[in-house]
Amino acid sequence: MSRITVLRLGHRIARDKRVTTHVALVARAYGAHEIIITGDRDDNLIRRIEIIVEKWGGPFSARFEDNWREVIRRFKEAGAAIIHLTMYGVNLPDIIDEIRRIWRDGKDLLVIVGGEKVPGEVYGLADYNIAVGNQPHSEVAALATFLDWLQEGEELRREFSNAKLKIIPSPRGKKVIRLGSEGLPINEDDAGH
Amino acid sequence: MSRITVLRLGHRIARDKRVTTHVALVARAYGAHEIIITGDRDDNLIRRIEIIVEKWGGPFSARFEDNWREVIRRFKEAGAAIIHLTMYGVNLPDIIDEIRRIWRDGKDLLVIVGGEKVPGEVYGLADYNIAVGNQPHSEVAALATFLDWLQEGEELRREFSNAKLKIIPSPRGKKVIRLGSEGLPINEDDAGH
Repeated sequence: MSRITVLRLGHRIARDKRVTTHVALVARAYGAHEIIITGDRDDNLIRRIEIIVEKWGGPFSARFEDNWREVIRRFKEAGAAIIHLTMYGVNLPDIIDEIRRIWRDGKDLLVIVGGEKVPGEVYGLADYNIAVGNQPHSEVAALATFLDWLQEGEELRREFSNAKLKIIPSPRGKKVIRLGSEGLPINEDDAGH
Repeated sequence: MSRITVLRLGHRIARDKRVTTHVALVARAYGAHEIIITGDRDDNLIRRIEIIVEKWGGPFSARFEDNWREVIRRFKEAGAAIIHLTMYGVNLPDIIDEIRRIWRDGKDLLVIVGGEKVPGEVYGLADYNIAVGNQPHSEVAALATFLDWLQEGEELRREFSNAKLKIIPSPRGKKVIRLGSEGLPINEDDAGH
């Protein structure tokens, strides 16, 4: 399967700290391989994501880059499809089959999610401007739904590698096991509430 | 179709302002009928959501309540199924058929999404504790994916009533029309970037 990279545009430390963290965790949990963050350099944010990967597994990486144009240019040159999630784009149900086909045929995807102000240039640089419902909502939700439709829900059953913690699904309460270096349970733990 | 209400627990004005806004906008855009917010009373947040509904249509409403236990009790008594989204729960693909069936059979749903600290009591009060992937990510994404799977994507094609603005999906740029009181276009507008 080809690689999925998420590009988060225009991060601002004070305002976006939590929303960008949500975007990054969704990227990981819904099967992307990495996130690139532009805007304010925020090493604490990158570190928080790395700690999640250390605990809950990967592969997934996060990094900051200064220049989003340069990121898009590099991915274009490498043959990736550039997908921009925007409420103004073509509605997801009308385009997902085409995206899924090119991705399964081996094209890497760069999935761009904006903050408040996305430069108009991005609409032109993208190969696809895609909306998740053409209504105002959330880049966190748009990313989740795009990745979920792309993978047809398979991402929700994915096993992560090198995890130290793993949840045992439970109808009540919280059941977490710690995994040893071989990925085997070393004890059981009710993490409590 | 029966009603879907979202209950957002433990809102804190300073920390959660944007994330709770995302939760509310996702509730609306993904087909819920209302959101009830508990925690800090935040009239500005409610007003922001109402402005979105005035512009982009409904039906959708948002309100604050003081006591989440009382909200859950009331919905239980009225016969709704209480669904709590938590990373520790039963994985969505393993339970969605059952939820969809009871919902289509006429049961209202109360869908609870927590903030940072969800009281342990909630796990016991819920009829279903449901995870979207058993990985740490985002209540915004979990709510979106739950509602999307419940409605099998139909929510992304929903038309909203009494909208003043409507997006015409576009492969490039932004195309928004203003609607008159009859829901008919009164002019076209490139909202620019």
